[in-house]
Amino acid sequence: MVTSDILLRHLDGDGILRLTLNDTPRRNALSEAMMTQLGAALAEAGADAAVRVVILAAVGPAFCAGHDLREMTAGRAAPDGGRAYFTRVMAQCSGVMQAVVRCPKPVIAEVAGVATAAGCQLVASCDLAVAAQTAHFSTPGVHIGLFCSTPMVALSRNVGNKHAMEMLLTGDMIPAKRAADIGLINEAVPADALRDTTEEMARKIASKSSMTLATGKRAFHAQRELPLAEAYVHASAVMVENMLTRDAEEGIGAFIEKRAPHWQDA
Amino acid sequence: MVTSDILLRHLDGDGILRLTLNDTPRRNALSEAMMTQLGAALAEAGADAAVRVVILAAVGPAFCAGHDLREMTAGRAAPDGGRAYFTRVMAQCSGVMQAVVRCPKPVIAEVAGVATAAGCQLVASCDLAVAAQTAHFSTPGVHIGLFCSTPMVALSRNVGNKHAMEMLLTGDMIPAKRAADIGLINEAVPADALRDTTEEMARKIASKSSMTLATGKRAFHAQRELPLAEAYVHASAVMVENMLTRDAEEGIGAFIEKRAPHWQDA
Amino acid sequence: MVTSDILLRHLDGDGILRLTLNDTPRRNALSEAMMTQLGAALAEAGADAAVRVVILAAVGPAFCAGHDLREMTAGRAAPDGGRAYFTRVMAQCSGVMQAVVRCPKPVIAEVAGVATAAGCQLVASCDLAVAAQTAHFSTPGVHIGLFCSTPMVALSRNVGNKHAMEMLLTGDMIPAKRAADIGLINEAVPADALRDTTEEMARKIASKSSMTLATGKRAFHAQRELPLAEAYVHASAVMVENMLTRDAEEGIGAFIEKRAPHWQDA
Repeated sequence: MVTSDILLRHLDGDGILRLTLNDTPRRNALSEAMMTQLGAALAEAGADAAVRVVILAAVGPAFCAGHDLREMTAGRAAPDGGRAYFTRVMAQCSGVMQAVVRCPKPVIAEVAGVATAAGCQLVASCDLAVAAQTAHFSTPGVHIGLFCSTPMVALSRNVGNKHAMEMLLTGDMIPAKRAADIGLINEAVPADALRDTTEEMARKIASKSSMTLATGKRAFHAQRELPLAEAYVHASAVMVENMLTRDAEEGIGAFIEKRAPHWQDA
Repeated sequence: MVTSDILLRHLDGDGILRLTLNDTPRRNALSEAMMTQLGAALAEAGADAAVRVVILAAVGPAFCAGHDLREMTAGRAAPDGGRAYFTRVMAQCSGVMQAVVRCPKPVIAEVAGVATAAGCQLVASCDLAVAAQTAHFSTPGVHIGLFCSTPMVALSRNVGNKHAMEMLLTGDMIPAKRAADIGLINEAVPADALRDTTEEMARKIASKSSMTLATGKRAFHAQRELPLAEAYVHASAVMVENMLTRDAEEGIGAFIEKRAPHWQDA
Repeated sequence: MVTSDILLRHLDGDGILRLTLNDTPRRNALSEAMMTQLGAALAEAGADAAVRVVILAAVGPAFCAGHDLREMTAGRAAPDGGRAYFTRVMAQCSGVMQAVVRCPKPVIAEVAGVATAAGCQLVASCDLAVAAQTAHFSTPGVHIGLFCSTPMVALSRNVGNKHAMEMLLTGDMIPAKRAADIGLINEAVPADALRDTTEEMARKIASKSSMTLATGKRAFHAQRELPLAEAYVHASAVMVENMLTRDAEEGIGAFIEKRAPHWQDA
């Protein structure tokens, strides 16, 4: 795997790919360069059988500060006032967020610092998220005249309406404990336990069949958007195909025989 | 009412039907026989005016262990590797879950032990759920190569995405207290208070007009899947018809006259 | 602004419009007169550039008791048993609730007392809600044979299914603390801190660009009802238009230059 300057990649022996945002001068902003790196890394992770779980972490006090406002502002210089540029940037950003959701490997956010705007959206888009108790989250676009409308797509699919609206309308920072209480993240842990907690969670998931994880993650999002009866039709069909795989036969056999399973892709 | 060996039925004088899973050798698994019994009991409860509320309980340390994996494995012996069989079982199971949702009588899960996989789905499918503080919940299919794709349909309609994904991707057991915190159940109570708590809740609901409960439960699920404006059109029409019933006239009259109402179906 | 007897209106210098339900003899019920007043006030607030945020408060021990049951009962005297009348009242009530949602100005409920039935729905319909710790909430229609089917449209879009069903099926009052825990309100505060808390929240929001708030609130509800991919298409388009506004240019410029922004509509 190639490590760029602004996005570090490290794959360990358990199949855990650690992607680390590493652009502290820009508070790990989702610059065009960063989004390109992140999109490429997620695509590669999805296609690489050696990758079983992805951890998304960051260097420095900011996990991710959202869009790069200087870059965005420079875009206004175009004859159309930036319309074409903003359209491209928003499409790229929404594409990266959906790449997290569509990635067949589970993605865990490991949040040590401040996650704001599209940075908060990135956390919300991950399958799981663990944060240091010292971490904070906000959707502060309202402070600068630019409502966090795309971040709220991910935010409002994780937390209740009142909680989402409070973050969006006030722009206030919320601490990790509150983020855990409202469902934006799974857990807030002491800062010095963050990495161990995330790694343990990742190792646990990495020990499962990748086929099974990919099947389940895809089905989760597919069924979530369907009415109940249709969701059951879809999920039932997924279960039947899953039952017919070698890993389900092996896994169920191992369970009945009280032994450890051996996954096809392990 | 007929009591089978594996599903006990008891109807008390208040109209509370207690259905008790009673197949401890199989940890109350949703075997074909159990699903058939449960489906029949729910259909009967729905049609029987004497039944006002249903409590779903279980004998033994497991509330319900989900599908019967030995039975499922035996299904693989068919020439098609089990495809037709698995398809039938999944359809039956999804049918039972939706029978809980469609049953015109409120259904309360009383969970004393461990509810896993489709057993956890059964709890999630009930209108209300109370558990002993010693009870546990999980969707552990990921351990055996068979993602809990149908359980997640019910699970993800009760808890937030991050919480659902944590249970689904790790397969970890969560204690009743956590289940209450994330919304999978209504309440976790001391084990020796479980039955009293559930019975009190059931008696309270059994004292209402069955017509009203059926109207409301049906409308709840119908409106939940509609956009806001359509949901209001639907619910408003339901309210108008409800107002025109004898029980609403009686109930409102009793309220204004400060007396107890007498329901038509009581 | 005109102040009617039953709905007081007061607009302060910060653009905070305080609407106060003032019909204590009817426990601030949503009588036809009250709904007409409320609908008119919301329409006016939406159109008046001087109004930046709306607080919805109430005089007396009841925040709002829901429909006026005496008025509803009188409607039964019509030749059709009240069908046409109930239809009109339900349409009016659902219209008022949706007027809160569609109002371009954020609406904050300030709940000092008891909010029941359509009164609870009104709280659920607001963007934000703060309550005194002594406040209570319920959807008690089930007690009078009239299930809270329209209130549940708003309720079930704020709290989880199990929590919504518990309130709807039992009709039980829940204290403000529980309402905060399940997401029906943002916060429960000591009664003597209620007004200050709400005003502070309102002032914070009133300091933002009204264009931005209106853009975001509208987009929130639009995207919330769409599948993920469509939600991103919608929200991305909103972001592009928002970026091209004068307030976003000013807000981002002020942020980069570390100065306070001056909104076009302030």
